[in-house]
Amino acid sequence: MATKTERKLRSDGQRSRQTILRAAANLATVDGLEGISIGNLAAHIGMSKSGLYAHFGSKEELQLATVDTAGEIFAAEVIEPAETIADPLEQLRALFNRFLSYLERRVFPGGCFFASVEVEFGTRPGAVQDRITAVQQGWRGRLERLIREAQAAGSLDAAEDPAQLAFELDSYLLMGNTGFVLHEDPAHLHRARTAIERRLRQSGPQPSRRTRR
Amino acid sequence: MATKTERKLRSDGQRSRQTILRAAANLATVDGLEGISIGNLAAHIGMSKSGLYAHFGSKEELQLATVDTAGEIFAAEVIEPAETIADPLEQLRALFNRFLSYLERRVFPGGCFFASVEVEFGTRPGAVQDRITAVQQGWRGRLERLIREAQAAGSLDAAEDPAQLAFELDSYLLMGNTGFVLHEDPAHLHRARTAIERRLRQSGPQPSRRTRR
Repeated sequence: MATKTERKLRSDGQRSRQTILRAAANLATVDGLEGISIGNLAAHIGMSKSGLYAHFGSKEELQLATVDTAGEIFAAEVIEPAETIADPLEQLRALFNRFLSYLERRVFPGGCFFASVEVEFGTRPGAVQDRITAVQQGWRGRLERLIREAQAAGSLDAAEDPAQLAFELDSYLLMGNTGFVLHEDPAHLHRARTAIERRLRQSGPQPSRRTRR
Repeated sequence: MATKTERKLRSDGQRSRQTILRAAANLATVDGLEGISIGNLAAHIGMSKSGLYAHFGSKEELQLATVDTAGEIFAAEVIEPAETIADPLEQLRALFNRFLSYLERRVFPGGCFFASVEVEFGTRPGAVQDRITAVQQGWRGRLERLIREAQAAGSLDAAEDPAQLAFELDSYLLMGNTGFVLHEDPAHLHRARTAIERRLRQSGPQPSRRTRR
């Protein structure tokens, strides 16, 4: 059985690990995930390189743990608060609002962590890219599932292709992120919100199918 | 007056400069524009650091010249071929098709140069960010102008906000780029094309304004 001192040490180590990874995730949205070497991060948080090596054996381990931490932050900030909403269309709307609020509140200094690293790691196959892709696919899959559920519930037009609609809605978020980060102007988030509302309204239930194309 | 030998030397220097900058622009879409140090680029193209310093006095000068070169490539690949089309809506469609083709043909190995560096330099104010922003604003401004011209010509609904419509159309291109780079699957480019066509059709001239919202 662990003594009180051992538990205290382990808990300090856990806290310290979380602090390091939070700093790493922040830094990755500014300098890139590839910019996070153990040396660079050690200098940034004022810790010795050997101390960091004790936590993470390699740069790749550090990058993987950073992606996991960013995923947990994303889940806590965007996904989990929306999951309490039973109605699928309203849960979808809540996800988009939470995402835009997560950008506006600058949870990460350089915008959405995943939007940054998807582009950066698009050309770097390997374990880190796989982890990033899994988060991206989980997000897109969640949007598609909620769209299908909203179609089944009759609150979205059943004629919409869920994958296509999810792509379009996700596009507005991505462009909102890029514009907001580059211009530091929330007008880009408002444009994304306007686009989402228009698109959802337009794919609302169609009492009489329009024949016009 | 320059002798023939002097002209030959200058022209070799010009060619060499263009070769270096083309390599730098390619590398920037893989390693980031910040990843292009003079040392890194020298190793990549097999040239001495002092040779590169003779062309570019500093890393920032090299980055600025790289953005300019990427802008010239973008203009030649995407903008100029479409400019010959007189009808504004058709020119807009041609711009989108050229953009998607520029991605599919992998003009840059890591997708659209500007999509990559906009995210990367969003958090790095300075001369390089200003140059990138100017290209991005020029592109978006071009889309808005063509939308206004198409509205004036009666081929797009005059009730559309040109800036909002340009944002939405540009979003599909950005998401098409991100998906294509990350998954190496042209399905993402097809989704972008489908989204653009749907959106343009939907904002086509409205003979009788729909009252439904």
